[in-house]
Amino acid sequence: MKFQKNDDGKLKIVLSIGDESGIGPEIILKALSSQEIAEEIEILVVGSKKILQKEYKNLKSLGIKNIKDPDNFQIYNLEIPFESNNSKLNYGDSSFHYLTKAIEIVKNCPNSALVTGPICKKSWSTAGHKFSGQTEVLAECCNAKHVGMLFTAKSPFTDWRFNTLLATTHIALSDVPKQLNKSLIHSKLDLLYEFSNNYISKPTFKIAGINPHAGEEGLLGTDEKDWLNEAIFTWKAKHKGINIIGPISPDTCWNSSSKAWREQEAEKHDGILAMYHDQGLIPMKSIALNYSVNTTLGLPFVRTSPDHGTGFDIAGQGIAQSQSMVEAIKNAIELTRLRKKSNLLNSH
Amino acid sequence: MKFQKNDDGKLKIVLSIGDESGIGPEIILKALSSQEIAEEIEILVVGSKKILQKEYKNLKSLGIKNIKDPDNFQIYNLEIPFESNNSKLNYGDSSFHYLTKAIEIVKNCPNSALVTGPICKKSWSTAGHKFSGQTEVLAECCNAKHVGMLFTAKSPFTDWRFNTLLATTHIALSDVPKQLNKSLIHSKLDLLYEFSNNYISKPTFKIAGINPHAGEEGLLGTDEKDWLNEAIFTWKAKHKGINIIGPISPDTCWNSSSKAWREQEAEKHDGILAMYHDQGLIPMKSIALNYSVNTTLGLPFVRTSPDHGTGFDIAGQGIAQSQSMVEAIKNAIELTRLRKKSNLLNSH
Repeated sequence: MKFQKNDDGKLKIVLSIGDESGIGPEIILKALSSQEIAEEIEILVVGSKKILQKEYKNLKSLGIKNIKDPDNFQIYNLEIPFESNNSKLNYGDSSFHYLTKAIEIVKNCPNSALVTGPICKKSWSTAGHKFSGQTEVLAECCNAKHVGMLFTAKSPFTDWRFNTLLATTHIALSDVPKQLNKSLIHSKLDLLYEFSNNYISKPTFKIAGINPHAGEEGLLGTDEKDWLNEAIFTWKAKHKGINIIGPISPDTCWNSSSKAWREQEAEKHDGILAMYHDQGLIPMKSIALNYSVNTTLGLPFVRTSPDHGTGFDIAGQGIAQSQSMVEAIKNAIELTRLRKKSNLLNSH
Repeated sequence: MKFQKNDDGKLKIVLSIGDESGIGPEIILKALSSQEIAEEIEILVVGSKKILQKEYKNLKSLGIKNIKDPDNFQIYNLEIPFESNNSKLNYGDSSFHYLTKAIEIVKNCPNSALVTGPICKKSWSTAGHKFSGQTEVLAECCNAKHVGMLFTAKSPFTDWRFNTLLATTHIALSDVPKQLNKSLIHSKLDLLYEFSNNYISKPTFKIAGINPHAGEEGLLGTDEKDWLNEAIFTWKAKHKGINIIGPISPDTCWNSSSKAWREQEAEKHDGILAMYHDQGLIPMKSIALNYSVNTTLGLPFVRTSPDHGTGFDIAGQGIAQSQSMVEAIKNAIELTRLRKKSNLLNSH
């Protein structure tokens, strides 16, 4: 089935399954049956129809009810031949092709957004696809110079949007202090500002330090003193009216997020810039577990994905939670609408 | 006033004020008036009586009510002469002496515990006291070979005790991968086991990885492959019956803690070993803000402290929250009782 070019203004979500030996097919079948996803949204799943049908039968046989029949939604059927005896390699290869095909479709279809199922980096690497993650493939396919990995979640308690952008992503901890520098921080702050501009003109951002207690005046690391303080200062000077706080001691940087997530009256910020993967993701998941989704900034369209991995250890058992996939779809819809509204406003 | 040697079995809490130019005096006066602290507990505050009285007057003039009059509790009055024009240095010096005096008192008083107010490491350093934190002073004063910085919090929702032990503490982020090694992990697991043995015989421990996704099979860092996996394996082999899970991807390692904190039915673990300061403290504060206290393992007595710093920016305004100090005192009491009970059981 081919995805129609949409001139009808109807929002379209293109969904790549990810690694089909993981929980991807299961969470997609579950998520697509969710009442939380508005009916007027058109969805196209990119992957193997056979595998979706097989998983549907499996889930049915396990007695699971709220799942969508693959005959009742659009599938861009891609059957990638399994050419190796190594099934990891095969699933790595197919998940890579689903992603690139889905990107191609979204690029050519205005008013659409991409949602990606989880993949396995090791399987990609085994299959010869040398990217450290889906974000890096997106950057290359879209010729995007600067991209950012933002985790975002909308609080079900306060409707507040909780954003954490990562300055560095999938690298070893020992490489973090080496890869961080002033121009990287500036380009990430630019991305965060551009993103939040979709819904607020004068945002408040917080920036986490690198070291414990943000270095405590150089006693616990000198990165802040050596360059981070100055990097923040110069960006701030160029962006009057934006409230920038930091570098903040990392262990207290998310305290206000924790409150804003649950309390209507709490002080609300518009985004935090985290220095590295776990610094940003640990509080996102501790505070907004199952609500947090990964979104890529700097692309010509919205892309989201659930905040979890392939779940190989629980695949096929029917026990995977689809809440994060539901949130990924809901956020893709909301962020695309915000972006469209902001573009319309700016063009007038 | 001198603290009486207590043979009456009554539990005694010795409380060092910490840096008196911060919020220490305020949170102590507030905490001591709390209804949550049982009346039969004897408390001795070590610090300057003059400064406590001054702060009491200040808080009264600000209209703050629930504070305890320094004339109505025991104070070990230490007036350290201010010999410098640098007030940071003076407060650094006095807070150091309050701590060492408080340690001396607790060491000589059975059935007592130490609670420490926050100090400023930079001020200590300026005053010539070259310790990276209070934990290091405690280790030296008690001749303790192996000490551990454990953050612990008792959930007000489920009564579950949430523990996170730090493998490394106050060091620059770039030093973390260099300082971690097998013998360090073993000695920290020994401490965690000894601690949890006070209330459970077969604990479940989780161990966070060092790198994102715990290295993802070496793609995102090799520390896990190179030595951490093996370090966990060998400790596990020597401790049959203890459930050890890890290394876990750091960004999901605290997911179950988040649930256990709020949901009675959730799976409960007995402690997590975090690899570095912010990896462990970010989730502790995100999940258990204001309930988390710092406790030192490996000492001959219980020591706790609030999980926040000196709060120089808000000192003197009457707005400091004393909840964490209240929790530090409550936890010192509970942990001392658990320890005593366990010692009694073991001696029979």
